[in-house]
Amino acid sequence: MKKLLCGGTVINVFTDEMEKANVLIEDEKIIGVGQYTPDDADIVEDVTGKYICPGFIDGHIHIESTMLTPTELAKLCLPHGTTAIVADPHEIANVCGVKGIEYMLDASREIPMNVYFTLPSCVPATPFDESGAELYADDIKPLYDNPRVVGLAEMMNYPGVIFGDKSVWAKINDAINIGKTVDGHAPFLSGKALDKYVSAGISSDHECSDIEEALEKIRKGQKIMIRQGTAARNLVDLLPLFEEPYNHRCLLVTDDRHPADLMKEGHIDNIVRLAVKNGKSPITAIRMASIQAAEHFGIRYVGAVAPGYRADLLVLNDLDTVDIEDVYTNGEKVVSGKKTVEFSAPEINSDLQETVLNSFRLKELTLSDFHIEEKGEKCRVIEIVPGQLITKEKIEKINWNENNGIDTERDLLKLAVIERHKNTGHIGLGYINGIGMKSGAMASSVSHDSHNIIVIGTNDNDMMIAANHIRQFGGNVVVENGKIVAQMALPIGGLMTDLSGEEIAKANENVRNAVYNFGVPKEIEPFMNMAFVSLSVIPSIKMTAQGLVDVDKQERISLYCD
Amino acid sequence: MKKLLCGGTVINVFTDEMEKANVLIEDEKIIGVGQYTPDDADIVEDVTGKYICPGFIDGHIHIESTMLTPTELAKLCLPHGTTAIVADPHEIANVCGVKGIEYMLDASREIPMNVYFTLPSCVPATPFDESGAELYADDIKPLYDNPRVVGLAEMMNYPGVIFGDKSVWAKINDAINIGKTVDGHAPFLSGKALDKYVSAGISSDHECSDIEEALEKIRKGQKIMIRQGTAARNLVDLLPLFEEPYNHRCLLVTDDRHPADLMKEGHIDNIVRLAVKNGKSPITAIRMASIQAAEHFGIRYVGAVAPGYRADLLVLNDLDTVDIEDVYTNGEKVVSGKKTVEFSAPEINSDLQETVLNSFRLKELTLSDFHIEEKGEKCRVIEIVPGQLITKEKIEKINWNENNGIDTERDLLKLAVIERHKNTGHIGLGYINGIGMKSGAMASSVSHDSHNIIVIGTNDNDMMIAANHIRQFGGNVVVENGKIVAQMALPIGGLMTDLSGEEIAKANENVRNAVYNFGVPKEIEPFMNMAFVSLSVIPSIKMTAQGLVDVDKQERISLYCD
Repeated sequence: MKKLLCGGTVINVFTDEMEKANVLIEDEKIIGVGQYTPDDADIVEDVTGKYICPGFIDGHIHIESTMLTPTELAKLCLPHGTTAIVADPHEIANVCGVKGIEYMLDASREIPMNVYFTLPSCVPATPFDESGAELYADDIKPLYDNPRVVGLAEMMNYPGVIFGDKSVWAKINDAINIGKTVDGHAPFLSGKALDKYVSAGISSDHECSDIEEALEKIRKGQKIMIRQGTAARNLVDLLPLFEEPYNHRCLLVTDDRHPADLMKEGHIDNIVRLAVKNGKSPITAIRMASIQAAEHFGIRYVGAVAPGYRADLLVLNDLDTVDIEDVYTNGEKVVSGKKTVEFSAPEINSDLQETVLNSFRLKELTLSDFHIEEKGEKCRVIEIVPGQLITKEKIEKINWNENNGIDTERDLLKLAVIERHKNTGHIGLGYINGIGMKSGAMASSVSHDSHNIIVIGTNDNDMMIAANHIRQFGGNVVVENGKIVAQMALPIGGLMTDLSGEEIAKANENVRNAVYNFGVPKEIEPFMNMAFVSLSVIPSIKMTAQGLVDVDKQERISLYCD
Repeated sequence: MKKLLCGGTVINVFTDEMEKANVLIEDEKIIGVGQYTPDDADIVEDVTGKYICPGFIDGHIHIESTMLTPTELAKLCLPHGTTAIVADPHEIANVCGVKGIEYMLDASREIPMNVYFTLPSCVPATPFDESGAELYADDIKPLYDNPRVVGLAEMMNYPGVIFGDKSVWAKINDAINIGKTVDGHAPFLSGKALDKYVSAGISSDHECSDIEEALEKIRKGQKIMIRQGTAARNLVDLLPLFEEPYNHRCLLVTDDRHPADLMKEGHIDNIVRLAVKNGKSPITAIRMASIQAAEHFGIRYVGAVAPGYRADLLVLNDLDTVDIEDVYTNGEKVVSGKKTVEFSAPEINSDLQETVLNSFRLKELTLSDFHIEEKGEKCRVIEIVPGQLITKEKIEKINWNENNGIDTERDLLKLAVIERHKNTGHIGLGYINGIGMKSGAMASSVSHDSHNIIVIGTNDNDMMIAANHIRQFGGNVVVENGKIVAQMALPIGGLMTDLSGEEIAKANENVRNAVYNFGVPKEIEPFMNMAFVSLSVIPSIKMTAQGLVDVDKQERISLYCD
């Protein structure tokens, strides 16, 4: 079956030129760009006055952060021109191990958006984490056999790289020997330490937040993934990278992006649009959004409107605003007049399905599980910093006589992290300041990176009910006076749902608003802040299922400080 | 073992910048570029005032055309800054098949120049050829297992590609499926025919002789290999490709280069030098000569002076003249003060060695083998065109009464192509005009692409003696009055020798001069012109072991034309 796109202006990412040309597609491939006529094709699409450019590629995204299945994510991303993504299934791997990765591969088969994967390099993220799995080099190596697996994902363990940790190096060397890309993650690393890290073969970074950092990394041979996600938004600071000669060494990514932002602002199209708004060349931005991502991962014959390339392409009404009319992937029109053509999710292997749907392994919680022993006058309290993921340590005198030390007047709430993968019974308990909740409790199974159950509350009973709800349904929940006020189930690994993007965005809004109703100030993102309270790689004090961790010293510390 | 290159200015091919920086090498790898001190290293090299740039890569060369073994070629190329080549062993494959390719792989193991290979795609080159082997997709596929095999070599059979020849497509699809590069060879192909050819996945071309042809191919996604060899010299015509944005899609190659030119003018350094002389940026040219070749073939961590990259680098006294002082490959100093450090050839598998040293399989020739039957008044004669590889058809009346039709007055010499691979006894006989030889005979085992024995002479006896000499020793020979006047043995497949570059250049000069002494005008390159008289893909009339071929019609034709 041959299709002809007739009358358009083609963006050429090899020469940065525009040319009036017709595009001939046969099956999934572009087979001609030039003076073709309707006689050459079975189907003719008139795109007179419009632009044709390659589909956009997100070079680094965690699907789990969208809370959507690959299918529902595709429905959201396709109208924004995303024809391929490179996903790092780091979160589900922390919950379900290799089977979690296999689930993601299976759930993204044969959908109209092309989904590639890099393999999680750091599961668990830290030795303090109690995750659902520990992945060593030999565990992930067989997954490279899948042609959609294109690399090793963000190597966050830079001390492991620099100081020669054998397990870390084995993962890197496997990827290199198999000919796969090794992606990096090393915020602020520079100079000789960066040299050591890059020397291992780590060929990209998506954590640059200022231009000097980015330029140093480019000079040392790394590709820079310019990231514009939901929380981390680096585009404005990295705008000079859209200029020559740097643009040839950059690609565009979102990393973590919420469905509401995907719907409201867009995806990679949003980054291109913002770059153009800031005076950058649309053709350069499109090149960075397409062929350069493909080339970074060695994905051949993808990312350009040229003969032999996969027919992943966009029809734009306007170049500067990236106004997308139609989208083609694998030669099929999947967005027509801004509307995504319907498609269904692939059938998933029942064993994998069962694994991800049954990821909670812990006993029902009782009130006593939330009780903190009185062992001294003062405790270490985690202090939330509004608008940031870092936390501070605060020493507070605890009033043990009332409500087991919880004091909403002083904004001292109770915090619990409950191991939920191996039924160890481990529960880390403590106090948190800065959330501002006056009533009820909230709980979630999204708590980086191990995704144990995390709960913050004003009383033990609401916390218990909230945690037991998560144990059953996953997701986020808000409880007050023993009743569930709002909830969003995430049954797939406690991380994802098969609801649509619109539905999940609405549910997410609901649970958020419920917490705001408890007096939490709007500068706090309650569930996001809570989700990072357990990640012991971000300074300076965090809570795990085994208790508090001093991140700077990388050691466990006691709740009590006398 | 750590080495420090101290005080130099480093050429950065990622940013097109120059920066004063010290380069730290550990074993075969660069591990740091920056403020390192002698304390960081075991060996310190002072390169104050000099430039450090990545080693040069020839993206397409036939080693056999140099007549040298990989070892001797490396000795010639290293002082010119060539640290890696991508070789297409097309000629030896036509003689010895897969074993010929294996010999080349074996003979290029562990030498100080890094030798990669693309696999010959067209053996034999045409259906008229009687080569030593026919290579199908399944024959060459196992060779991709060798990590130094990076692609499928120049697909010359463009009709086969365009008209869907299954055997041709199988070779292309194997390479693509294994993730290897597919190189092209399609002079003058354009428009819809080019679209079809490129659509197969053929990602480069090295046959562009004018800028419009090159730009069309770049626009269609092909990389252009800018070629400056011995016969084909396209640099001047393709100079605009050194400009933005085209330079990002180009690399530098020599294709066929004689040792005398390598010694006198240089190799890839010569192309860089010529580009600079013509006003192009030396940094751009160096980038095209290094990282861009590596990236085209997916050879990671090669082609830049950056952490993690293989320490293949050059120390230059001057940038514009590309004056090379030292060369490092795999972290070892292999050229020091313009002198190549001594090294020996690798030990070669005895079975492979025996195969390539015993490639002549034909009976001793007798006088009657050279006799042309009198069958008519007029014959088709091949006419040589000075300075070109094409030939023309000429109809001449033959004087059968004297010297079996040979007539030096009218410059009608006898031509024989003698099958030498399978002892078939096939001998193609005819007449040739334009060589201008007045006495003796010359013969060679270099006759494209099947490398049968080719002989041109003024009498049958000298022709017989010349051909029998080649049958024993291979190479080129000149005979007069029954005596060998000059000879250059090429015992390895009849194509190569283990003599040094200097020795072979001198021997080559000798045989050439011996032919010039027979009255051949200097505008003729006698052995080169003769070598292409048998290649039935170049218009318009050629001689094979089964007789004349009309190249334009692609059919056998009779010697006699009445």
